Amino acid sequence: MLKEAVQEVRVFAPATVANVACGYDVLGFAIDSPGDEVVVRHCDKPGLHITSITGDDGKLPKAPEKNTAGVAALDLLRHLGMTDRGIEMEIHKKMPFGSGLGSSAASAVAGAYAVNKLIGEPLSKKQLLPFAMAGEASADGAWHADNVAPCLLGGIVFIRSNDELDVSQLPAPDNLWAAVVHPDIEILTKVAREILPVDIPVANATQQIGNLGGLLCGIIQSDYGLISRSIHDVIAEPRRQKLIPEFYKAKRAAQGAGALGFSISGAGPSVFALCEGEETAQKVGAAVSKVFTDIKLGNQTYVSKINPHGVHVVEEKASS
Amino acid sequence: MLKEAVQEVRVFAPATVANVACGYDVLGFAIDSPGDEVVVRHCDKPGLHITSITGDDGKLPKAPEKNTAGVAALDLLRHLGMTDRGIEMEIHKKMPFGSGLGSSAASAVAGAYAVNKLIGEPLSKKQLLPFAMAGEASADGAWHADNVAPCLLGGIVFIRSNDELDVSQLPAPDNLWAAVVHPDIEILTKVAREILPVDIPVANATQQIGNLGGLLCGIIQSDYGLISRSIHDVIAEPRRQKLIPEFYKAKRAAQGAGALGFSISGAGPSVFALCEGEETAQKVGAAVSKVFTDIKLGNQTYVSKINPHGVHVVEEKASS
Repeated sequence: MLKEAVQEVRVFAPATVANVACGYDVLGFAIDSPGDEVVVRHCDKPGLHITSITGDDGKLPKAPEKNTAGVAALDLLRHLGMTDRGIEMEIHKKMPFGSGLGSSAASAVAGAYAVNKLIGEPLSKKQLLPFAMAGEASADGAWHADNVAPCLLGGIVFIRSNDELDVSQLPAPDNLWAAVVHPDIEILTKVAREILPVDIPVANATQQIGNLGGLLCGIIQSDYGLISRSIHDVIAEPRRQKLIPEFYKAKRAAQGAGALGFSISGAGPSVFALCEGEETAQKVGAAVSKVFTDIKLGNQTYVSKINPHGVHVVEEKASS
Repeated sequence: MLKEAVQEVRVFAPATVANVACGYDVLGFAIDSPGDEVVVRHCDKPGLHITSITGDDGKLPKAPEKNTAGVAALDLLRHLGMTDRGIEMEIHKKMPFGSGLGSSAASAVAGAYAVNKLIGEPLSKKQLLPFAMAGEASADGAWHADNVAPCLLGGIVFIRSNDELDVSQLPAPDNLWAAVVHPDIEILTKVAREILPVDIPVANATQQIGNLGGLLCGIIQSDYGLISRSIHDVIAEPRRQKLIPEFYKAKRAAQGAGALGFSISGAGPSVFALCEGEETAQKVGAAVSKVFTDIKLGNQTYVSKINPHGVHVVEEKASS
């Protein structure tokens, strides 16, 4: 049953922390902010038209088939046989590119979700996953759900298989908070990927598997001690930390302030800590921020609970 | 508070399935049978004395410091400062060596558990883990909890770290059954280990991590579909299957009979299937057994629910 009496929808898609230390390519979670906003409205001219993009320093293309949010929306409309619909889209980027916070995933999710809402919500959130994935893949060429899935669904999301899009939403422990700090440098996902090894020792794989399993058990059973013992990445972090100034100093600062664990968010340069409680998360965020500030590196700190909702409608205007 | 009025204790330690496909070195579960029995009783002559071993074809040493059950018991007594206690031990092996069913782990667990019971139970089951580990390590030279921990604790046990002995017991889904078939060949754990690669592609590690995480989520959330999609081993099984005649034929037979998944138990040659419900497990066990029987390979089939208890007392005689 389609509900279609909406003239305009504004949606917010949150930043996400992918990899989560030992969960390389298989785990991600959403935070409250920053995030991207997309506005869509019906118009008379057939087809999808991106009328305005803000916050991108003019970097993003307005051609829908070249724009992350546009590709996601077009892919959805194509699937539904609705490409002749007249739709205007505005994109408001509110987080930096190449930040390791799932910027392109947020735009892709926002694009697909907003259009789905506008046309009467024919698909469920979970059904939008492949379209948002297509949008993100158009930006970075990879097919990974670890930003897109938590951005769309909220919470902590585990991805058994990116190819099969087999995702499970995990209940986040009540008092689990994240402190995320973004230092003002840019790391290209491509560079961060190339720095990784092709082969690793089976012993390292086993260690990573042990930690990932421990983290999942800790999350599901609200066992903060087990979460803490499990947040270790022996595959990506030892290589990628070189791309982030004072990474280990920041890590020690986070641990000293009481973090359960600390690692790189996605491909970086953002870093994140998981913490038990808001007070600790605030302290950890401040301690990590200070490490970057001390070397005159601008940075932004975001402290929030794990965001359980993911993308959501901010404002809806009914058809007159 | 020590309870010590026991003259003799007979305990049963069950067989275990380690690795569980994608859980190489980190996952194991206990089944109901087969298993080893150990009897201990007080005696006047100080020290631990192994008076009788049955079912071993004379292969096992009676010197306690060279015997798996003996080492575990001695290690415990040493820890408690009780090596001067006079204790007699009988060992009744009821499962084959080198079967991939945790034979040495069962003896080690039974040895430590029986002595702990006899001397008034000063330690909890979980506290016995390092002593049982020491017993098993004396037999196969490795330090892996994936047989010892489920044999001791029961249920499905996840091991975040073997070095740290960080183990979590997972609740098994109500209707999860195992069909285990042991073909009459012997695989030395050493050979099964040497056949494994030293390095693996990161892509394989990620796949294995995805499947292990999926299996844990499936187990904890009783999601049989997710369990089924997750029981794949891309690291050990492709190499070790060569050591088991008609492995893939047996796998196809198991799948054809409705198994959720099928792989090698521990280092083999035993194979196991996880199934939803007893009826399916019985069918799967019969189908796999037939594959071995058809090539004139003797075999034994064991069908049971996941055993939630692990090692337990069979008989206790009070001091007169």
